[in-house]
Amino acid sequence: MATLGDIGVSAVINILGAFAFLLAFALLRIQPINDRVYFPKWYISGKRTNPRSGGGGGGVGKFVNLNFKTYLTFLNWMPQALKMSEDEIISHAGFDSAVFLRIYTLGLKIFGPIAIAALLVLIPVNASGGTLFFLRRDLVVSNIDKLSISNIRPNSYKFFIHISMEYLFTFWTCYMLYKEYGRVASMRLKFLASQDRRAEQFTVLVRNVPHVSGRSISDSIENFFKRNHPDHYLCHQAVYNANKFARLIRKRDRLQNWLDYNQLKFERHPEKRPTSKKGFFGLCGKSVDSIDLYKEQIKELDKKLTMERQRILKDSKAIIPTAFVSFNSRWGAAICAQTQQSKNPTLWLTNWAPEPRDVYWKNLSIPFVSLSIRKLVISLLVFALVFFYMIPIAFVQSLANLEGLERVAPFLRPLIEWNFVKSFLQGFLPGLALKIFLYILPAILMIMSKIEGHVALSVLERRTAAKYYYFMLVNVFLGSIVTGTAFQQLHAFLHQSATLIPRNIGVSIPMKATFFITYIMVDGWAGIASEILRLKPLVIFHLKNMFIVKTERDLEKAMNPGGVDFPETLPSLQLYFLLGIVYMVVTPILLPFILVFFAFAYFVYRHQVINVYNQHYESAAAFWPHVHGRIIASLLISQLLLMGLLSTKKAANSTPLLVVLPILTLTFHKYCKNRFEPAFRRYPLEEATNKDMEDRAAESDANLNSYLADAYLHPIFNSFEEVELVEVRVDKSQVHIPSPSPSDHSSPSPPHYAYHHENEPSHNVDRYEVEQPQTAYHYEVESYSNMFQYDTESHHHAYHY
Amino acid sequence: MATLGDIGVSAVINILGAFAFLLAFALLRIQPINDRVYFPKWYISGKRTNPRSGGGGGGVGKFVNLNFKTYLTFLNWMPQALKMSEDEIISHAGFDSAVFLRIYTLGLKIFGPIAIAALLVLIPVNASGGTLFFLRRDLVVSNIDKLSISNIRPNSYKFFIHISMEYLFTFWTCYMLYKEYGRVASMRLKFLASQDRRAEQFTVLVRNVPHVSGRSISDSIENFFKRNHPDHYLCHQAVYNANKFARLIRKRDRLQNWLDYNQLKFERHPEKRPTSKKGFFGLCGKSVDSIDLYKEQIKELDKKLTMERQRILKDSKAIIPTAFVSFNSRWGAAICAQTQQSKNPTLWLTNWAPEPRDVYWKNLSIPFVSLSIRKLVISLLVFALVFFYMIPIAFVQSLANLEGLERVAPFLRPLIEWNFVKSFLQGFLPGLALKIFLYILPAILMIMSKIEGHVALSVLERRTAAKYYYFMLVNVFLGSIVTGTAFQQLHAFLHQSATLIPRNIGVSIPMKATFFITYIMVDGWAGIASEILRLKPLVIFHLKNMFIVKTERDLEKAMNPGGVDFPETLPSLQLYFLLGIVYMVVTPILLPFILVFFAFAYFVYRHQVINVYNQHYESAAAFWPHVHGRIIASLLISQLLLMGLLSTKKAANSTPLLVVLPILTLTFHKYCKNRFEPAFRRYPLEEATNKDMEDRAAESDANLNSYLADAYLHPIFNSFEEVELVEVRVDKSQVHIPSPSPSDHSSPSPPHYAYHHENEPSHNVDRYEVEQPQTAYHYEVESYSNMFQYDTESHHHAYHY
Repeated sequence: MATLGDIGVSAVINILGAFAFLLAFALLRIQPINDRVYFPKWYISGKRTNPRSGGGGGGVGKFVNLNFKTYLTFLNWMPQALKMSEDEIISHAGFDSAVFLRIYTLGLKIFGPIAIAALLVLIPVNASGGTLFFLRRDLVVSNIDKLSISNIRPNSYKFFIHISMEYLFTFWTCYMLYKEYGRVASMRLKFLASQDRRAEQFTVLVRNVPHVSGRSISDSIENFFKRNHPDHYLCHQAVYNANKFARLIRKRDRLQNWLDYNQLKFERHPEKRPTSKKGFFGLCGKSVDSIDLYKEQIKELDKKLTMERQRILKDSKAIIPTAFVSFNSRWGAAICAQTQQSKNPTLWLTNWAPEPRDVYWKNLSIPFVSLSIRKLVISLLVFALVFFYMIPIAFVQSLANLEGLERVAPFLRPLIEWNFVKSFLQGFLPGLALKIFLYILPAILMIMSKIEGHVALSVLERRTAAKYYYFMLVNVFLGSIVTGTAFQQLHAFLHQSATLIPRNIGVSIPMKATFFITYIMVDGWAGIASEILRLKPLVIFHLKNMFIVKTERDLEKAMNPGGVDFPETLPSLQLYFLLGIVYMVVTPILLPFILVFFAFAYFVYRHQVINVYNQHYESAAAFWPHVHGRIIASLLISQLLLMGLLSTKKAANSTPLLVVLPILTLTFHKYCKNRFEPAFRRYPLEEATNKDMEDRAAESDANLNSYLADAYLHPIFNSFEEVELVEVRVDKSQVHIPSPSPSDHSSPSPPHYAYHHENEPSHNVDRYEVEQPQTAYHYEVESYSNMFQYDTESHHHAYHY
Repeated sequence: MATLGDIGVSAVINILGAFAFLLAFALLRIQPINDRVYFPKWYISGKRTNPRSGGGGGGVGKFVNLNFKTYLTFLNWMPQALKMSEDEIISHAGFDSAVFLRIYTLGLKIFGPIAIAALLVLIPVNASGGTLFFLRRDLVVSNIDKLSISNIRPNSYKFFIHISMEYLFTFWTCYMLYKEYGRVASMRLKFLASQDRRAEQFTVLVRNVPHVSGRSISDSIENFFKRNHPDHYLCHQAVYNANKFARLIRKRDRLQNWLDYNQLKFERHPEKRPTSKKGFFGLCGKSVDSIDLYKEQIKELDKKLTMERQRILKDSKAIIPTAFVSFNSRWGAAICAQTQQSKNPTLWLTNWAPEPRDVYWKNLSIPFVSLSIRKLVISLLVFALVFFYMIPIAFVQSLANLEGLERVAPFLRPLIEWNFVKSFLQGFLPGLALKIFLYILPAILMIMSKIEGHVALSVLERRTAAKYYYFMLVNVFLGSIVTGTAFQQLHAFLHQSATLIPRNIGVSIPMKATFFITYIMVDGWAGIASEILRLKPLVIFHLKNMFIVKTERDLEKAMNPGGVDFPETLPSLQLYFLLGIVYMVVTPILLPFILVFFAFAYFVYRHQVINVYNQHYESAAAFWPHVHGRIIASLLISQLLLMGLLSTKKAANSTPLLVVLPILTLTFHKYCKNRFEPAFRRYPLEEATNKDMEDRAAESDANLNSYLADAYLHPIFNSFEEVELVEVRVDKSQVHIPSPSPSDHSSPSPPHYAYHHENEPSHNVDRYEVEQPQTAYHYEVESYSNMFQYDTESHHHAYHY
């Protein structure tokens, strides 16, 4: 076991590592060439279009910062990160990100006072215990253990102090949780109330629309809602099973990109038209003019697209029994989303529609019965993954040994036989499979969540985060404390008595404190520092820039930073809460390390949220109930383990005092669930009425119908539409307002288009390059609009493009 | 252990006992004097007012049946009980009773085919096993064990047959459960749809109305709902904290009864006016004229009542923050009941209002925060009661021994010292405390449920049934299988490994089969026969008739049979399902006994439901999800125990096959929950719309306002009102229709009054006797109506009487 000195050394190493990362970050971020890696958010929000010049001007200044003064202030991003107020962050980076940052401050608020109290009270009590001094010769005891509960003599009355501290800390944590939950809930309601008119406020996702023979889905929906919500129903949008169309669109994008690339090439070198070979992957065959080739291919593909699109729009089987139903008021949508519609509760399932950009379209077509089977299968798979993941990895490891390698690649034999390489490989190969598995684990979990059938990206991310948390809880937390694989633990647990389990785990808890301290420093401190450096995106960006990026559009794609990685960051954050809460009474010396992590990570993520991440959706902090629930679960785990630990210390007269604590904690959780969770799940009618009235007073509900008419159009139709934007606008005002609402002033609503552009910024850039195809489309667009006008009677709002 | 012969003897005894009960019933029920005990339902429904004459005519014929032919056909109640169709039972005895009977047929449907299959397949397999033949000399083995799974050799492949039968039986049970759940759910919806206009369809119970300073509760409610449900809100009724008033009303009833009694006495013996003494309990003091005395006392009490009533109606603190809010359509009520109203989800809690006669008024005033604390405390208490109930009983037993008795009552000493009495008491006294406890247990559980704060009688009964079921599961089922008290079992379970628990219980299962067979015969066969005899009500009725009943009103009260005793019958029914399901594979010989129970009990309860019970409320089979859930739980218990049992039989290669079964069963349960449970919890908008449209087409929603205006008036105001019925009717049409709805034709709605009379049949009888007080009230009623007219502006519908 590590002594205090060992930990000091480790701390120094990790701090140095973190500083190295920070220094590298400070150097790299002020290089103009890296500007798009470290400040992509500003490009996306349109506030920056060119890298800040490095002061030096001239050619090199475009890539390297030559202003040496800026190098001296390498930590100045920290105050910069703190400058923005929370409200500014909400409007700049979204509510999700702002609340995400509050998790870190919550950690500081919870563990700050607890750390002070624990260090002042528990450390002296533990240090004066003195059992371990006597045992010294027998056991290898670290200095840290002298500061932990292990140092207290069995049967000592000092355990009352620990128990009362556990009570005190639990109450403090619950108090902070309660305050924070209330704050976030009210912030959420305020945020929702402050939002402008948004499609999802008026729209309900209806699933499992029953098939009635001789009637189209759209007809059924129209009939049903006109009958059951006569005063509130406005319109609906059918959902198409457009997976094939989406594939074609992707292909067209790719071709378009090649075309752009070749055109650019030709512009730069007008003397030579680019050519490519027609054969296998452009490697052999006859040479042809590239621009012509791609133009021709695109034209052909466009024909296919048109056919496919016609097929989708005409084929009633392409409409899946799911629809986005819009209402003329938030009140109407709120009651439809919260009530049961049909006698058969598995039909006409209504729920709030996710944001348009949050919809995961592929899963909309999954039928209800299949959903419950999927859920069952996936939960069994997750269970297996958590407890048995070592089995396939061991299998792969057994394959990936040196003999296997020699058999597969005999030419490597001389190299492998070399001793140094051999030992390196023998040490390295078995671990490689595990590393690769851990690296792709979040992706696997995300695929599992997708199979489960959730229809919103935000839900997918939350479900993935939950699965990842279970994995970490069993394999990182329990796996580090109890020896053996998770499967062995499971086996042991099943064959142990219920009271023995917390006892056996509890006993090992104090012994693992040093391990977790090291873990916090490596994963928490240095890991967070590497997060701000963004080494991976940096390398990938420059690699792409060198080899792959062909057009401006690609550049934008390459620098797309994505949102905060909730599926990975939330579970690891929750693991830190768990560690802090479990050790707060047992080995309080761990708390300062946790505090440093929270403080440092807060700075880093605040910087990242402001400068880097670009959320793809806004769930209005829908993840908070999970954060809250898992901290409560950590409290319960901590109480159980402390009970188990104390029962080995013969503290029989004090342990029963702890039994009340889990009951109180659970009651608190239930109360919070009742008190705050509805704010995250439902939309109170009071709010809906207020907002409706505001709108009515401002007369801003004008033109609601046309605003909602195609808010939930499948995005692929949108992206196709971009090309012939002007013509379609005209069509739209002619075709798509069949049922004029009283407040419908029929002026084309500008916010609508602004909205879509926000989501697909990558398409604005290359508008100038597609002039040729645009003219080529004129004819087809005309024919579309005619076709649609003809079909409108039968399909009612089913397709508006 | 009992042999087959022993069980045969026990069966003969129990069958003879059951026949004795049936014979006694057959004799007693045709005596006119018992007619009110055995056919009270017909008196209550008004189809019978006098006992059927015994054919013999004359004086004795009024009390004893002299037609000897009727004695010969003593089992003819059975075909009579079967004559009524289910629809007739629904209209005659209510939907709850009809569905209650379906539980018995469900038992027959589940266990009938299972019993046949088990007897044909498993008994031969078990009998040919032959382990026990070898062990015979060592163990005392009953013949029954030779037919059970115990007879199979360890490690035999025959266990595959048992496992496949467990699968088969589980699928069959689930199939029957699914069909039955679907049937009951659709019957329920049909029943609800077929009902006439009922107050609870339009009404929502709103709790936790926030106090706004300077505004009355009624004002807040009116404002809130007018704002948030502008098109649907109709009116509301405030709820008063009228517990003191209720006490006074009870006192007045008592006095009125004495007055009636004395007046009757005077009518029969006009020569002598009855007198009573004024002093301590009428035992001493001056003799006064009884009629005058009671008249005077009633008059005084009426003044007090008036004062109290004025205080309640004027004091804003007497209005509790709870109200029954009515809407002008079922649709409006359905959406209000199912949605969240306010930003703060603990305020403005809406839920379906129970039927007016189902409301438990006392609990309406409990605040929300207190509710969750109450729930916690009660669930802890129930846990303690289930596991530690032996502790207080042992304490009482230790007090109630002979020494204690001698100390308390020294004059009994000579008697107690007598040997025979001594031994009898020593055997009897310790058991007495336990018997008394078990007898009052349902009452204790009901009090606990009341403290929990449920607001409907039906919910109270269901919660009590749930508690009783837990008690029976632990103390009857587990308690009989595992030795030791429940507390000792709990202790053992906590210190056993998770896999050992089903193993230890499973091993004892086959050994206890004979005990449970005897239990079924005693509790099931003979117990049900004693149920039809109604010995307790019979004795109480005749005792009351002799000593207590003074007036016709008392007679009606004395013969009030109550409803089906759900808190006791449902749990014991569920226990029989558990026994059948646990033993179906282990000891299939038990199944015929269960089948006989279900068939016999079906006849008996069908008879009772038709002739005896009078449901006080109609929950439309809201108990069914619990019945379903507990049968599923029985399946799970059975599977776990079979796994445990097989694991001791070294059937390691077959046991893992069983692991899948609980998962499938749970999945089935979840599916059923999704598919059917909403029909019992929510009211689909489709149904609401249909019903509203029907009403509108029939124009039967006329006068809805006045119909709903006082549907939820506290019943004590109603009972007080009865006296001055005529005058108040006039007042009502003047005062209580402040907001005329478009369809309000303002004709006083007759169904409304019919409704109230139905619920309080006891008040109609003595109308003729209260003429004197009625005239005395004329003046006061006038002043009331003025007062109310004056107050109406500020209180809006808060009190309509």
